[in-house]
Amino acid sequence: MRRWNGWGEEHTEMALAADGARFLQGVLGDGQVLPLASLDSVIKQVPPSRLPAHPLTSCDPELRIRHARGQSLPDWLAMRSGQFERFPDAVALPESAEQIRELLAFAKAQDALVIPYGGGTSVAGHINPPESSKPVLTLSLARMNRLLELDTTSHLATFGAGANGPQVESQLRAKGYRLGHFPQSFELATVGGWIASRSSGQQSLGYGRIEQLFAGGLLETFDGTLEIKGFPASAAGPDLRELVLGSEGRFGVLSEVKMRVSREPACERFYAVFLPDWNHALPAVRELVHAKVPLSMLRLSNTAETTTQLKLAGHPGQIAWLERYLRLRGISSDKCMLLLGISAHPKQLRASLSQAKAILKPHGAVWTGTLLGKIWERGRFRFPYLRETLWQAGYLVDTLETVIDWSGVERLLGALEHSLQAGLKDENEPVHVFTHLSHLYGSGSSIYTSYLFRPGADYKTALARWQKLKKAACEAIVREGGSISHHHGVGRDHAPYLAAEKGERGMAVLQTLAQHFDPQGRLNPGALLLDQGQMQ
Amino acid sequence: MRRWNGWGEEHTEMALAADGARFLQGVLGDGQVLPLASLDSVIKQVPPSRLPAHPLTSCDPELRIRHARGQSLPDWLAMRSGQFERFPDAVALPESAEQIRELLAFAKAQDALVIPYGGGTSVAGHINPPESSKPVLTLSLARMNRLLELDTTSHLATFGAGANGPQVESQLRAKGYRLGHFPQSFELATVGGWIASRSSGQQSLGYGRIEQLFAGGLLETFDGTLEIKGFPASAAGPDLRELVLGSEGRFGVLSEVKMRVSREPACERFYAVFLPDWNHALPAVRELVHAKVPLSMLRLSNTAETTTQLKLAGHPGQIAWLERYLRLRGISSDKCMLLLGISAHPKQLRASLSQAKAILKPHGAVWTGTLLGKIWERGRFRFPYLRETLWQAGYLVDTLETVIDWSGVERLLGALEHSLQAGLKDENEPVHVFTHLSHLYGSGSSIYTSYLFRPGADYKTALARWQKLKKAACEAIVREGGSISHHHGVGRDHAPYLAAEKGERGMAVLQTLAQHFDPQGRLNPGALLLDQGQMQ
Repeated sequence: MRRWNGWGEEHTEMALAADGARFLQGVLGDGQVLPLASLDSVIKQVPPSRLPAHPLTSCDPELRIRHARGQSLPDWLAMRSGQFERFPDAVALPESAEQIRELLAFAKAQDALVIPYGGGTSVAGHINPPESSKPVLTLSLARMNRLLELDTTSHLATFGAGANGPQVESQLRAKGYRLGHFPQSFELATVGGWIASRSSGQQSLGYGRIEQLFAGGLLETFDGTLEIKGFPASAAGPDLRELVLGSEGRFGVLSEVKMRVSREPACERFYAVFLPDWNHALPAVRELVHAKVPLSMLRLSNTAETTTQLKLAGHPGQIAWLERYLRLRGISSDKCMLLLGISAHPKQLRASLSQAKAILKPHGAVWTGTLLGKIWERGRFRFPYLRETLWQAGYLVDTLETVIDWSGVERLLGALEHSLQAGLKDENEPVHVFTHLSHLYGSGSSIYTSYLFRPGADYKTALARWQKLKKAACEAIVREGGSISHHHGVGRDHAPYLAAEKGERGMAVLQTLAQHFDPQGRLNPGALLLDQGQMQ
Repeated sequence: MRRWNGWGEEHTEMALAADGARFLQGVLGDGQVLPLASLDSVIKQVPPSRLPAHPLTSCDPELRIRHARGQSLPDWLAMRSGQFERFPDAVALPESAEQIRELLAFAKAQDALVIPYGGGTSVAGHINPPESSKPVLTLSLARMNRLLELDTTSHLATFGAGANGPQVESQLRAKGYRLGHFPQSFELATVGGWIASRSSGQQSLGYGRIEQLFAGGLLETFDGTLEIKGFPASAAGPDLRELVLGSEGRFGVLSEVKMRVSREPACERFYAVFLPDWNHALPAVRELVHAKVPLSMLRLSNTAETTTQLKLAGHPGQIAWLERYLRLRGISSDKCMLLLGISAHPKQLRASLSQAKAILKPHGAVWTGTLLGKIWERGRFRFPYLRETLWQAGYLVDTLETVIDWSGVERLLGALEHSLQAGLKDENEPVHVFTHLSHLYGSGSSIYTSYLFRPGADYKTALARWQKLKKAACEAIVREGGSISHHHGVGRDHAPYLAAEKGERGMAVLQTLAQHFDPQGRLNPGALLLDQGQMQ
């Protein structure tokens, strides 16, 4: 059973090694565990639905609770304190495009708002019911999760938009294919959600972002179905796919999606490489992407992240051996870990490996083989479970991400980390901050920063601390010219910062599009675009 | 001096070998050369301008003639017969974004239409003044052609939008970089034009289409400048770049563009490979892209194109030797030529070559080394000059292109070639048709078809023949589910067919966007989107 108030399956846990716990105590002080509200106590709070009965909807309180919040830290605080604020008035689980259209018509007739819901994994408030006098219908695509068609000549797979990561990949694997989209939300997030929020997976360097994988599909709108034909590429005017990508449910509901798939790679390896320090590591990875070495993944942790990861990894004996070996090779406490993936034919793998080694050598790189890569691969979707472990140890963790040209990476990364490190200075409270680059492009890189802090005495304090940190970090991103999101999307949490990058005229275009598809503003209002009240 | 009534520089010519001339005579009959109107006679026809004088515009008749038409076959017929129909009332050659905005304001004040003009290489009627009671101002970006900034850390180059292919590449080459965008229009077409029409270059397999190369820029609109910030990638809502890509001047005028550039490759080779016939060739190239071999170009000619190319190449002695060699290796008259490019580090080149050879071998491929590849490379931008040569020999040539999923390639290619071959049956006139695939994707391929025919007794007959052929071919594309353009764009010639792929709701979105940017419909009306009158 999926957790009602946190990430993933109830019985999946990730242990915190004694060494890791000591490390956190050292940097943050003793943990502070907040009390958990029970599901029963929350069920009692759920108000009566403002929507009449409909054969395709349910007003079951537990179902409404389970669709009321995403996975952002404030969502966790709301769920765990039992202070949900709002619930959808009803939840629908349609099984076809026709049923989606029927539900849209129902919402229109009832003057209700509609929140399209994929895996509920948003960390930016995409699926939270907004404050409104209108009733809210949450429309979950969870039952539309089948591989509907696989064209093995064209390597195109059509899915119901509600297929989650494992459903996508297991149905493809049975036929020898893969989509290759592996975001950390993989276990729960859906292909439709990835498209609507412009997701990017861990191996985007090889497989592309969701923009490159999404070929076309059906968008159900109040006005009927917009069919986006899936050409390999086309010069026939602006690309309608691009309107849906990142639309965050404002323009319509994806029912079916056609995806570009690949055969499973002949060979796939993840190597761990260590670089002496950040000043060696940054030009090294830039050089790898500029030389266009065919790799499927690069993930470079800064010194703070490398240290933290090795501390939290458990196995202190093995890690000590590794560190001794690295010291012998001249790499000590400032080291940065680089994970490098290759997914290719063995000939290409050898060529890429050889080229990567030649490029990294002058930067002082030490290769440690594939063992750490295998450990990473096994645990690649486990990180979200660590939040639970840390919660139980009395620490809160959140992540933030942005993207900028290479010439701005160092400046923005520094400003972002500083904004968080200093964010609770007024309370004399430490914040532990570390960062990696995991989506590298010729022109720049994503910056993914994690931060840990203590909740304080109660939920109110915890939320206030988060708000302070989030605000400081988002302002640093905007000030230094980063995008407010590289792959988490805008949702409600980032909406106030969007205008800084799109500009007034860019925002006006997006408003025009929202108005075009949804003149009454029923579809996920407040996500992506602030509603009129908020803008003033 | 650039030709006023055709392609390229006046003194650049491409000879037609005697063998080639005989070949054409054999398939099409004796050539029919139409008389050419003189520039002087056309100058006398140019009517007085309907626009008042302005310091940034010129009403010089020759300048107006030189900006009145593109390079489509009907454009050629119009220019060569002297029947231009319409001329812009004035031409402006702004030197800055400010001047563009000043000209837009002037056009608004004068109730004039504005046609943004890049290299004038459109083959789909993008820049032809429409029939209108309003005066027409053509706004050429030709003077805004400089490399304004090169960020060597981020591999980003900012250009004036009017820089043409040689201006782009020579300014980059001086610093060790390349854009890598090499469409056949390279010599004359501009980077802004490529973006506005979603162009694709010969090495798009390695460098990407213009969509992947365009990072951001400035769009001058009636309402001011829309700045599109150039992130490497972003999840912050729909991507504004994608609105400009393919907008064909309907939303605004690009003034500055930021492009993702690469270092010049360590090594670049083009290999010629022959396959026994189309049935062997098609699965062979599909396998190359599905195996994701890192190549920078694939161009597969069908049997008719291979035969025609070898006949028109000149050097009959050497070609005879080549054919003898191929026959010894089991490849005879049904042969298909595949050009395969690799642009990479020598290690990668060897790996890609080895993998490509292993993949092509079971399909009966015979490699002939890099000699034909070098000949192709030297003449890669010369094909448009062949139109002049063929004209002088009394034949007309035009090309058509589309794109479709792999599962539809064979069907669409057959239907397209048949529509042209049979297109002049009512006149008992032969049409020589041949095709290549030159932009290959995991999910499908472009289809590029050339057709040659005789003009008949006069220009009227020639135009009527072209109209018949074009209509038949476009209808075949639409019927078989292809896109109306893979890289030539929509312009005025393809606009009637756009709704077939975008659908009624897709067209409505594009109309809303045009309305948003240009409520009075002054910007390039009739291109991309039919104007209201035409739609009825």
